[in-house]
Amino acid sequence: MPKPRRAVLHRLPMRHPGDTAAIEALIEAGRLDPANLVAILGKTEGNGCVNDFTRAYAVQSLQMMLARRIGAEAAAQIAMVMSGGTEGGLSPHFLLLSVEPGEVANPAGALAIGTAFTRDFAPEEIGRMPQVEAVAAAVRTAMAEAGIAGASDVHYVQVKCPLLTSERMEAAAARGATVATGDTYASMGLSRGASALGVALALGEIDGVSPEEIGQDWAKHSAVASASAGVELERCEVIILGNSPDWAGDLAIAHAVMQDAIDLPAIHRALASAGLPTEHGQLAPVAAQRLIAVLAKAEPSSNGRIRGQRHIMWDDSDINATRHARALVGGVIAGAVGRTDIFVSGGAEHQGPDGGGPVAVIARRAP
Amino acid sequence: MPKPRRAVLHRLPMRHPGDTAAIEALIEAGRLDPANLVAILGKTEGNGCVNDFTRAYAVQSLQMMLARRIGAEAAAQIAMVMSGGTEGGLSPHFLLLSVEPGEVANPAGALAIGTAFTRDFAPEEIGRMPQVEAVAAAVRTAMAEAGIAGASDVHYVQVKCPLLTSERMEAAAARGATVATGDTYASMGLSRGASALGVALALGEIDGVSPEEIGQDWAKHSAVASASAGVELERCEVIILGNSPDWAGDLAIAHAVMQDAIDLPAIHRALASAGLPTEHGQLAPVAAQRLIAVLAKAEPSSNGRIRGQRHIMWDDSDINATRHARALVGGVIAGAVGRTDIFVSGGAEHQGPDGGGPVAVIARRAP
Amino acid sequence: MPKPRRAVLHRLPMRHPGDTAAIEALIEAGRLDPANLVAILGKTEGNGCVNDFTRAYAVQSLQMMLARRIGAEAAAQIAMVMSGGTEGGLSPHFLLLSVEPGEVANPAGALAIGTAFTRDFAPEEIGRMPQVEAVAAAVRTAMAEAGIAGASDVHYVQVKCPLLTSERMEAAAARGATVATGDTYASMGLSRGASALGVALALGEIDGVSPEEIGQDWAKHSAVASASAGVELERCEVIILGNSPDWAGDLAIAHAVMQDAIDLPAIHRALASAGLPTEHGQLAPVAAQRLIAVLAKAEPSSNGRIRGQRHIMWDDSDINATRHARALVGGVIAGAVGRTDIFVSGGAEHQGPDGGGPVAVIARRAP
Amino acid sequence: MPKPRRAVLHRLPMRHPGDTAAIEALIEAGRLDPANLVAILGKTEGNGCVNDFTRAYAVQSLQMMLARRIGAEAAAQIAMVMSGGTEGGLSPHFLLLSVEPGEVANPAGALAIGTAFTRDFAPEEIGRMPQVEAVAAAVRTAMAEAGIAGASDVHYVQVKCPLLTSERMEAAAARGATVATGDTYASMGLSRGASALGVALALGEIDGVSPEEIGQDWAKHSAVASASAGVELERCEVIILGNSPDWAGDLAIAHAVMQDAIDLPAIHRALASAGLPTEHGQLAPVAAQRLIAVLAKAEPSSNGRIRGQRHIMWDDSDINATRHARALVGGVIAGAVGRTDIFVSGGAEHQGPDGGGPVAVIARRAP
Repeated sequence: MPKPRRAVLHRLPMRHPGDTAAIEALIEAGRLDPANLVAILGKTEGNGCVNDFTRAYAVQSLQMMLARRIGAEAAAQIAMVMSGGTEGGLSPHFLLLSVEPGEVANPAGALAIGTAFTRDFAPEEIGRMPQVEAVAAAVRTAMAEAGIAGASDVHYVQVKCPLLTSERMEAAAARGATVATGDTYASMGLSRGASALGVALALGEIDGVSPEEIGQDWAKHSAVASASAGVELERCEVIILGNSPDWAGDLAIAHAVMQDAIDLPAIHRALASAGLPTEHGQLAPVAAQRLIAVLAKAEPSSNGRIRGQRHIMWDDSDINATRHARALVGGVIAGAVGRTDIFVSGGAEHQGPDGGGPVAVIARRAP
Repeated sequence: MPKPRRAVLHRLPMRHPGDTAAIEALIEAGRLDPANLVAILGKTEGNGCVNDFTRAYAVQSLQMMLARRIGAEAAAQIAMVMSGGTEGGLSPHFLLLSVEPGEVANPAGALAIGTAFTRDFAPEEIGRMPQVEAVAAAVRTAMAEAGIAGASDVHYVQVKCPLLTSERMEAAAARGATVATGDTYASMGLSRGASALGVALALGEIDGVSPEEIGQDWAKHSAVASASAGVELERCEVIILGNSPDWAGDLAIAHAVMQDAIDLPAIHRALASAGLPTEHGQLAPVAAQRLIAVLAKAEPSSNGRIRGQRHIMWDDSDINATRHARALVGGVIAGAVGRTDIFVSGGAEHQGPDGGGPVAVIARRAP
Repeated sequence: MPKPRRAVLHRLPMRHPGDTAAIEALIEAGRLDPANLVAILGKTEGNGCVNDFTRAYAVQSLQMMLARRIGAEAAAQIAMVMSGGTEGGLSPHFLLLSVEPGEVANPAGALAIGTAFTRDFAPEEIGRMPQVEAVAAAVRTAMAEAGIAGASDVHYVQVKCPLLTSERMEAAAARGATVATGDTYASMGLSRGASALGVALALGEIDGVSPEEIGQDWAKHSAVASASAGVELERCEVIILGNSPDWAGDLAIAHAVMQDAIDLPAIHRALASAGLPTEHGQLAPVAAQRLIAVLAKAEPSSNGRIRGQRHIMWDDSDINATRHARALVGGVIAGAVGRTDIFVSGGAEHQGPDGGGPVAVIARRAP
Repeated sequence: MPKPRRAVLHRLPMRHPGDTAAIEALIEAGRLDPANLVAILGKTEGNGCVNDFTRAYAVQSLQMMLARRIGAEAAAQIAMVMSGGTEGGLSPHFLLLSVEPGEVANPAGALAIGTAFTRDFAPEEIGRMPQVEAVAAAVRTAMAEAGIAGASDVHYVQVKCPLLTSERMEAAAARGATVATGDTYASMGLSRGASALGVALALGEIDGVSPEEIGQDWAKHSAVASASAGVELERCEVIILGNSPDWAGDLAIAHAVMQDAIDLPAIHRALASAGLPTEHGQLAPVAAQRLIAVLAKAEPSSNGRIRGQRHIMWDDSDINATRHARALVGGVIAGAVGRTDIFVSGGAEHQGPDGGGPVAVIARRAP
């Protein structure tokens, strides 16, 4: 009988987007075998928008460092999802996901990981049905790879997706192709939205989707998708996190859906599902030690209001709306968990309800 | 025997910094007599830094509107403290403080208000000892005016203070006077800091202060001061809020001190002191109805860390550090109270501990 | 025989958007009769985008000051066109346009001014054909009012136009009306574009325009239109500047069209047309004394390039593209004229060719 | 008799900070031998301030690409000076400086290049006398290496210098050392200023400098220094460009000093010195073909005025002053040369007079 797999997650700080020293130290200390890495998520300190090069810089730095240790080809197999923007108190950090051989499968369910990539997209496919469908197929592939049978066992699906730059739009135009939008920034939202709808489709959260609903009908959304757009790739990269009784280890994942940006009770529900109690609203110290990662989406409500009060996120021409939203949601979550190295990414189109978003918690089970 | 005074507080939204329509509607409805107004606090949607003209625009709009109703001279007597910056989810709003004739003094203590102004400062006095001392004197005057006997009954002291602009620095230089700093933005911090030390001195929170400690020795601070700098004034305006058994009404104020920017338990303590219970970390709906105002300070920790994790507020050259801090603290508090019309102002120099700050809660007592 | 009119133009600095002291000093000195004012243009130091309240603040300050002197009703008749954004070296300033009784008509042609207002627009009309047509009608009205017979004698048409805010979009939606765009910032461009097409239509620069060409077909444009969007109004305000032999005085206006943002030779042509010679590329000191105003439009080229080289204006998510463009064109013009109090306004949709724009020069004729 | 050296300069576009494709294409085409490279200057599209990681990303990308071709050790010998900030119309580009074997020395003088590095600095040395002195020594070394005898033959000295980050300041504090400033952004100016004073000292432009003059006495400055601060290095890198009759080739360098930010005549003088005539204020097309590079510094005048008119660069809390200044000076120069791939770097402390700065032109001599 084959040994079960075991998912391991390390959370490590970075001093700047090109800093991989903490990862290298872990490897040197024998606590991480880079050959086991399947994905690296990172929150880097750029603006998270079109001209955020901290993401590509971090990826290049990681690839260089890993290529020296496991070869460029193996390093290129690791999914890298850098999400820009550490506004407010958010702290730049990496989340390293490894799959190691385990000993005994955990019948209560243990954290399970699956990954898959789509093909590269042409500029004219970005934010449209071909992207939706390709992501849905990748989600199914990743679930099968992870051995997660049911959609209800999936608690988090990260999709890293491409965007339209001026250059890509020109290239499409030169071929006579029309793109989904002429605005680079808007293309990030459409690409994230199409990705999330792909997740929702694969998990049965929606029955179907039509082209005109992308970026329009926010009622169609996924409760577990988290999409992040970056200039540095042309395909989508899918990472699925769920629980499975076939995997070993004491890590488990849970999630809840924030109905709006200040839905602290939803965060408390996710923490409680993961077995983490709070005191005076915040994770008690002993529980905090068992918290390994928080992953959430942030987005300004499209009607310009939070519980009836006006917010200024959409009307501020100096700071992008997603930057405001990440700072806000980062604050709400940091208040709950008492830490700031939280993976809050912006742009929650079709990811949770309008103005809200999914929040996932990964924790060590109480002994 | 004279009738006791009663402090009344109205919280009203604004659609833009020049919008006083909600206040006018309240007056028209007979629910607010503008002649009773003693102070108006406002959170306006500018950047809260040097070139934030939303504060002066709001003040001018309020003065115009009130001059039509009570005359320009009476309008000019009302303290107006506009604090710029509604980053994250913060909602632009006004807090109107009136003093009306009451019926019966509340032996349990009721909200009491006192105000005082300093003289105009010369540019070279800003951020220095003359400002500290003038503010301390104004605090004592305001306490006497409010009939608040003890320092422990003071829960919030708002000081609006001036800053150095390029023009004011030139004017000082033309007279051969040297100013505290040649950097307009830095002058805001020094002015807020000197104001807060004045409060601390008046309330006996510190024994004394020396010139070189201003803007340097953060251990010297006030637990109730909230200072806000604006280009539109040259003096300091002081508003004191406390509880007094000589006042009538069912409003009461409480405060706590956030030790850092994510100190949600401190907010819970302030809410509890004001008799407001939480559920799942957030104010329960029935309690939320009794919450009238939250006033807090936000500031990035000077060591670049929150509970050991790096924040990027000081190193971000695109968004000012105070803008990040307001968004963050606004998120933490909004999570606790379930509302976003919170008065979070930036720049907490000598106002609470480094990286933290005071948080005050005004609520209607439970029946 | 009636006396001819004389157009007078004063250029005055402002220390902040609410500062009208220089205007008041001019009035006090008997050099400006406020009753003769027909228009005030201002460059204020906001961001020139959606949440730029410096425009409304300046208008309110001007109205207050003028109401005290000529009454609120007369003050309200003066067209006020505040254009936000003084990026790079641009200096905040007012241009005051008066019409006074003159002595002798100038057969060589003298500066002539005409103004007209449209009705208020519903949100759903902004950026669409009703706005185009209303502006065209207003241009014709203003020309007749100014006694400017031919379109070739019109050298500058300023249109101040409204934009869509979140609130206005909500109001339209509540009535079941759809607006031209759901993006507040994009609405500014559509409103400016529709205004410019109205000018082009009235002046015969284009034969007609169809709804789908607004904001799309940049080949259709005006060589003399300058449109500026602001949150503070709901109608369009039109100011026409041209030369007419019926007017008195020694001021004259000329214009040229910059083909791209760095078309310094076009600026030189406009200066030469106005009789102003340059030395080493810059206005000679004696000529500089005769320069009264420069008015220009700035816009990033839509293909992301200037003479084949990439610019980053569209891809920068920290600074709006129009802010970059104003700084750039302001630099090119300041190099030519040796002054920085230049009226460069952003957003040149349908105002000159893509990436370029009109530049008008008002000067005193050489003796 | 040994063959003379020949300096070759290639100007190449980049599509993003990590894009080295244009350089690789030149190498592939046999037009550039990477082994001959001595320096690469780059204008990258970050904010040019503290958290501008485009510089380090570009350096890493260049090093990776070159290491594959000439080995990591040789690649590390090439001085790399990335200057962040392409505001306004500035176009991101690389300037590649090579030294090749030439045929015949040019008795009229040909472009000559020398480079030198200082040691790494401790945080407490940055912006202080040890940096001044180390840079002066490096300048002398580079001159000797280039065979440039006289200071008057030096037309441009690029110094890339370090800055203080929060982490470096903490490290110094941990050792009990005090740093020149506690403000990361301010440290960039002090480091650039100390570097420029080092150049001025080495070239005899000033007789000496005292510690308190650094960052204070702007009368002490260099007419040829250009310093650029970056987070990615701890030493200073010096590149000297001048003319020498010992070198071969038809390239020559000239410079002038802009007395303020809109000193277009100074740019014309530099162009004329380099043998490039202008028409209507702009480089004529035939002359433009001979223009190889323009290198200039930009800085807001410290008194907040340009020729008496107020600028808002220092008072804008949304956009850093240097970003405004680069956009402005970039516009003035682009107007003169008709191109936007100009190396304008911000922060001209002690580099040219207050508010102005050096401008150097490299051109092919007329046949």
